[in-house]
Amino acid sequence: MSLTDSAAIDVARSASLASRQLAVLSNEARNEALTALHQALDQNRSTILAANARDLEAATRAAESGDLNHSVLKRLDLSRPGKYEDMLEGILSVRDLEDPVGKITLQTLLDEGLTLERVSCPIGVLLIIFEARPEVIANIAALAIKSGNAAILKGGKESMESFVAIANAVSDAIASSSVPVSSIQLVKTRDAVSSLLEQDSLIDLVIPRGSNELVRFVKENTKIPVLGHADGLCSAYIHSDAKLETAVKVIVDAKTDYPAACNALETLLVHEDVLDTIFPAVAKALIAKGVSLRCDEASKTVLGKTLSPDQIAKVQPATEADYNTEFLDLVLAVKVIPAANSAVETAIAHINAHSSKHTEVVLTESREVANMFMSGIDSAGVYWNASSRFADGMRYGFGTEVGISTNKIHSRGPVGLEGLTIYKYLIRGNGHVAGDYHDGPGGKKYIHSTMPL
Amino acid sequence: MSLTDSAAIDVARSASLASRQLAVLSNEARNEALTALHQALDQNRSTILAANARDLEAATRAAESGDLNHSVLKRLDLSRPGKYEDMLEGILSVRDLEDPVGKITLQTLLDEGLTLERVSCPIGVLLIIFEARPEVIANIAALAIKSGNAAILKGGKESMESFVAIANAVSDAIASSSVPVSSIQLVKTRDAVSSLLEQDSLIDLVIPRGSNELVRFVKENTKIPVLGHADGLCSAYIHSDAKLETAVKVIVDAKTDYPAACNALETLLVHEDVLDTIFPAVAKALIAKGVSLRCDEASKTVLGKTLSPDQIAKVQPATEADYNTEFLDLVLAVKVIPAANSAVETAIAHINAHSSKHTEVVLTESREVANMFMSGIDSAGVYWNASSRFADGMRYGFGTEVGISTNKIHSRGPVGLEGLTIYKYLIRGNGHVAGDYHDGPGGKKYIHSTMPL
Repeated sequence: MSLTDSAAIDVARSASLASRQLAVLSNEARNEALTALHQALDQNRSTILAANARDLEAATRAAESGDLNHSVLKRLDLSRPGKYEDMLEGILSVRDLEDPVGKITLQTLLDEGLTLERVSCPIGVLLIIFEARPEVIANIAALAIKSGNAAILKGGKESMESFVAIANAVSDAIASSSVPVSSIQLVKTRDAVSSLLEQDSLIDLVIPRGSNELVRFVKENTKIPVLGHADGLCSAYIHSDAKLETAVKVIVDAKTDYPAACNALETLLVHEDVLDTIFPAVAKALIAKGVSLRCDEASKTVLGKTLSPDQIAKVQPATEADYNTEFLDLVLAVKVIPAANSAVETAIAHINAHSSKHTEVVLTESREVANMFMSGIDSAGVYWNASSRFADGMRYGFGTEVGISTNKIHSRGPVGLEGLTIYKYLIRGNGHVAGDYHDGPGGKKYIHSTMPL
Repeated sequence: MSLTDSAAIDVARSASLASRQLAVLSNEARNEALTALHQALDQNRSTILAANARDLEAATRAAESGDLNHSVLKRLDLSRPGKYEDMLEGILSVRDLEDPVGKITLQTLLDEGLTLERVSCPIGVLLIIFEARPEVIANIAALAIKSGNAAILKGGKESMESFVAIANAVSDAIASSSVPVSSIQLVKTRDAVSSLLEQDSLIDLVIPRGSNELVRFVKENTKIPVLGHADGLCSAYIHSDAKLETAVKVIVDAKTDYPAACNALETLLVHEDVLDTIFPAVAKALIAKGVSLRCDEASKTVLGKTLSPDQIAKVQPATEADYNTEFLDLVLAVKVIPAANSAVETAIAHINAHSSKHTEVVLTESREVANMFMSGIDSAGVYWNASSRFADGMRYGFGTEVGISTNKIHSRGPVGLEGLTIYKYLIRGNGHVAGDYHDGPGGKKYIHSTMPL
């Protein structure tokens, strides 16, 4: 066992102990800690921004010498207008959300004097691994405390100075509250991740926030359940009866509103019957926004007849790999669905076989077709005549999100506070024993009546 | 890739395709398949019982030569009075449960004409691995079909003949219904388990039903989420104000009603103040039922003063390992909690550090102490003055269960049909795009109003 391993065990064990203390704190006590956290980050603004400026300076140098992607700079910069205020505001809005802990979701009278209750409770210890965005520390610390979970936070090296400055403010704020200090621990050692991922008996859930590579690395290197998504390969299907304006508007937004997002469109399926009508209009609108199309033979042929030479330069032949690719860029794969009664099934089968189970869209004027698509598609979000870009916790009205999950169990789609809780069953009796309930003479019978919540 | 691997991929892929067809079937269609399943098992009773008799004969020989535990014989025997009827009856009661699919659990008006809905849906493909009990095939097939999930079933070698006979009846019944044939697949090859556990892109959840060793093997050899429990190390704490009769009754039931069950008591914590009063009465009642006690120094000393020589023969000194042991036998570890204001916290800390997070019991007349215990304990079930033996899906009123989960996410405690479902988010719009919602001039605002369910 290396020193790092023993340090990781210490961190995880103290988080586990803190989580049990945190689990019994009232909503008021957790809220007070969030108020203190808000205050500390407000008061330490200049120190934190100075640290962030040092990170930014180092990152700018790295970007200039080609060692760092320029997009990281934007994500790193806490001094951009409104960003620090948003971070502060976010803490207060999490504080003011409904308490996710202690909600009774089932109550059954098992027998006279014997009640069963299912009540929501924190999961325990979260491990959050993130990359460049330093404000995530404040967001996640707030979400963890509000939901009664202890959190171990591990930041990326680009934001190390910001991270340490924010970490100090967070620790001071928590120390002044009744939330145990070890509830939020910030791990700075660079090689701690692998050791932490091994602590499956002490850490209950890992949430990686960052690149696909990070998420994949985490998923492949731990037995702890992972909440999140590696890919967001979203698709849209234009059915034969789609409305032209709706199709153009939704697809242009889904592809171009923010192409680097996980909820951006990556594959377009087009019913053969609208290849000559809706599809050219969609293609022209996309190309006007700078999108390149990767088309199968049939769709490419149609565009060859209708596009100008300038436009046709943006059309390339698709390979099979394009239908499995999350471009995260102004590129869209296009495939034609042959006209047949089973066209919707064909589209559904293509999507279920190729998608990452994030969000898919159907464009149709038929409720029946929409319902077939919505029940047949196996993804966290299935939308009818609306852009895939709505897949977001804020847009869903959850106030905040810890990420978007493409898992098949626990929590799917944008995950809010509810996804950071689980439940336990409480039974209250008066000396009741299971051996008294049997079919024989003198045996008691269960009542099993549902009690109002 | 071995032949087994390629066979496992075929099984998993066809299950995945079947799961998508099954997901769009109505409750009526799924129920009709269950009726057919019931009929087929009823009509093939003699064939199945003859096959079971052959299994039993082989197992009896193996048990006589010491190659098999005698307890397996009882679990294997389908001809025991009422067992076949219970199996048949179980299929119909699952059929008649409320449809777990298509339940709307959240509905939000995002904007005019733009609605968000959260609806329950099947998880997808389940892999169920079980050992001796052949009737589990019928139970699980029924649960899977009712919840719209495809299932791959892998039985143990002791029940192979019964398994094949039941499998044939199940397949014939399903073939006569609108449920796809590959929805329920029964894998007979002995070495298929490892290959199936590798199909994490096609199989969504594994449910091992059997020994601790089986569950541990599964948990250690797959990236697929595992629902279940390896250990059931349940504890009870007798507080200083407990009622003697309640303590005796609850602890005797918890320990002796069915010692081999996962919800049986394994550790008893006793408040120092009741060492001379309640504890000897509990110990005598347990010893009268044949229980051996593994006592720490303080509890052993007390019993030395109060028990008869015959009784004291059942008391041994405890080792630290005893507090981490699931005896599954008439053995109970005993530890004294020193008298102090923090005694409840001490008991909670011991349990959270040693338990398997299954079910724990507090014996006290104080609501305040009970509440502290119930919120402080991190287990799927926490009971006040009631036996741990109530931890069971039938007793909870769930009608049936697929197992008891000690996981910290998705589903905890006895898992019924609800634990075999997840949800997806549906958005219905009319050409709505995310880019229209912004703070700038002409930007639209979200309504985010909760709609009645």
